[in-house]
Amino acid sequence: MSQTLTLDTLLAAARKASRALAGADRDAGLRAMAAGLERDAERVLAANAEDVRAARAGGMPAPQLDRLTLAPERLRAIAAACEEVAALPDPLGRVQGGWTLAAGPRVTRVTVPFGVIAMVYESRPNVTVDAAALALKAGSAAVLRGSASALRSNRALVASLRRSLAEAGLPHDAVQLVDSPDRELVTELLRANGKVDLVIPRGGAGLIRHVVANATVPVIETGVGNCHVYVDAGADPETARRIVLNAKVQRPGVCNAAETLLVHEAEAPSLLPRLAAELRAAGVELRGCERTRALVPEALPATESDWETEFLDLVLAVRVVPSLDAALEHIDRYGTRHSEAIVTRSLHSAERFRREVDAAAVFVNASTRFNDGFEFGFGAEIGISTQKLHARGPMGLEALVTYKYVVDGSGEVRA
Amino acid sequence: MSQTLTLDTLLAAARKASRALAGADRDAGLRAMAAGLERDAERVLAANAEDVRAARAGGMPAPQLDRLTLAPERLRAIAAACEEVAALPDPLGRVQGGWTLAAGPRVTRVTVPFGVIAMVYESRPNVTVDAAALALKAGSAAVLRGSASALRSNRALVASLRRSLAEAGLPHDAVQLVDSPDRELVTELLRANGKVDLVIPRGGAGLIRHVVANATVPVIETGVGNCHVYVDAGADPETARRIVLNAKVQRPGVCNAAETLLVHEAEAPSLLPRLAAELRAAGVELRGCERTRALVPEALPATESDWETEFLDLVLAVRVVPSLDAALEHIDRYGTRHSEAIVTRSLHSAERFRREVDAAAVFVNASTRFNDGFEFGFGAEIGISTQKLHARGPMGLEALVTYKYVVDGSGEVRA
Repeated sequence: MSQTLTLDTLLAAARKASRALAGADRDAGLRAMAAGLERDAERVLAANAEDVRAARAGGMPAPQLDRLTLAPERLRAIAAACEEVAALPDPLGRVQGGWTLAAGPRVTRVTVPFGVIAMVYESRPNVTVDAAALALKAGSAAVLRGSASALRSNRALVASLRRSLAEAGLPHDAVQLVDSPDRELVTELLRANGKVDLVIPRGGAGLIRHVVANATVPVIETGVGNCHVYVDAGADPETARRIVLNAKVQRPGVCNAAETLLVHEAEAPSLLPRLAAELRAAGVELRGCERTRALVPEALPATESDWETEFLDLVLAVRVVPSLDAALEHIDRYGTRHSEAIVTRSLHSAERFRREVDAAAVFVNASTRFNDGFEFGFGAEIGISTQKLHARGPMGLEALVTYKYVVDGSGEVRA
Repeated sequence: MSQTLTLDTLLAAARKASRALAGADRDAGLRAMAAGLERDAERVLAANAEDVRAARAGGMPAPQLDRLTLAPERLRAIAAACEEVAALPDPLGRVQGGWTLAAGPRVTRVTVPFGVIAMVYESRPNVTVDAAALALKAGSAAVLRGSASALRSNRALVASLRRSLAEAGLPHDAVQLVDSPDRELVTELLRANGKVDLVIPRGGAGLIRHVVANATVPVIETGVGNCHVYVDAGADPETARRIVLNAKVQRPGVCNAAETLLVHEAEAPSLLPRLAAELRAAGVELRGCERTRALVPEALPATESDWETEFLDLVLAVRVVPSLDAALEHIDRYGTRHSEAIVTRSLHSAERFRREVDAAAVFVNASTRFNDGFEFGFGAEIGISTQKLHARGPMGLEALVTYKYVVDGSGEVRA
């Protein structure tokens, strides 16, 4: 059997299963998934240990190894997340609006499932369960393609999820694993128009670029965040200090962490030396423009590529700018439209920043780290969209459903 | 200068112009565009006459020639449409919601422009003005790529629009024509990620397929409608007759016209012979299944491809089905998720059809022809989306904007 045929079969089964979901007790399925993960913990952890062993032998770097590793408490947290998703309100069947046409028929716009949602992601096996749970809650089948390095873990997880679904009386084909390291299958998946309604990539910049460049099915682009904090003239130095440290240091490996600090020249001499000392004490390597280095001699010289880079690490590029305009220009040129913050006391600067910065979330006197589905109160997050189509910023369940128009008439026709 | 460089320059100018639009008097620009089209009518009509002459000499079929032709009254209607768009409420700056984060900052979700919207379309020159007007109203620059056959018309139209914008004090680069018959430029345009925020194709199935298959920028797929009317057991024959005739005959060349009639076997003997006579009297060619042909001997035998085809013409495929389930299966298999109608007196059938048919608009006892932005009361329409991402069904101005989150804090950081 050719690979295409295999994928076609898998997608047809996913489509069929998705049909049965809208009317099924999806929350019971989610609770069964949670219980099943506890029941199957030993099997899952053993499979994961094999993945970790192979990855370590293959020389996988430590941060990736950490992301790949499932400990018992991590698995419990993953199961608990399924319970939390079960407890969220149903995103389906919500009437978003309605009106009566001039000709008579009544229109209702109501939320409905996408149908089949594909996720393409990297080594974290928790994404396997998160994505399946959120898709199920949203009434869609999940087609999952993780990395080859996590294949044994994902097999064990998906086997557990499917068994739980079946036991709860739901179609187990609502969760499908593309169970092959063959990269051609990803390309097939990304081009399965009519069979896949939506694909969401989650992972590094390379993965996301690959998906965006190759998909012909609708995509929600997530993730890459080259985020800035701009400290305006007259800003409160303590607020600036707190926000810059939080945005850079609290969790540097995530997309809503700050990568570049822009400081108005009026504040740079008083702010930068002290703030640099604190950042360095927190382990942050600084890469500064010439004016920064005149104030902070220990900073390395920043190159053009430093302004462009999402370090995802304890590295911060620092630039002194002559004006708010220069800051806005810098953000426009190098930013990835993800999360951008200003620290200011000026109403005028705040308003210009809010209005002129083109980003999913614009922060005035608050940390970029708040750009997150849980912080936003969505109770779940499938990723942070950096595109403008459909969903922007943190995506909760609302981003995982679509709508249809229901038109009820009494025999009306168009004149 | 290479083509890529030319397109890059054009897109950079469009981006720059888009920035100035949010704060500009866009409605004044729209009114100036309307007035300018009247002023430049002679020049536009002369350019169009050249296009029509060349197309006729090249053997363009009559229906396409008709779509290409701009008569004075058509140009007046196009100008009037700009005035109507100016009179619509502003889709920007609308607060869609807001709340306070647990940590303190306040979130506001507010509509903002996409930035640069590209339209790829076929011979109708009215799309040039419609798309520019709707994009402008939505605060975005329009990058327009019509067909080679309409290039002279589009040049004249875009020159007029740009002149009018400049006279009204708006950046003329907010309306850009990709002024070359070179097809490679379309591919460049479809892959200009970061420079084009959205592309909308409008035209035949081939054009739409090409755009979907080649775009890496976000796309809204529009248009192809293989729409069905299903007449249920026990349906009122007069309602069935009226809706079927309207859905097929009132304007057969559009996407929301019906292409296949499905009739429950309980109604077929009484309904089909009379209805077939009326349809044939209206010039409709019938292509029926065997059971249909037993009742309507004049019908041609339907082939598999007839169930799949969007005729866009006075042709109707007809199938007798044994049950609602069979109708739902047929629609699921052959439908394009556009507009689907049931004629019924059964509450149960209506509810199943509403719930189980996966389409942008589902009609109960009303014509599929109502699936239209103007009929829906949107006051404008850029197309009818057949995808599930972002917009589904008729797209008015609401579909042409995105949103951002504005987060206002007092120095809060993430714990």
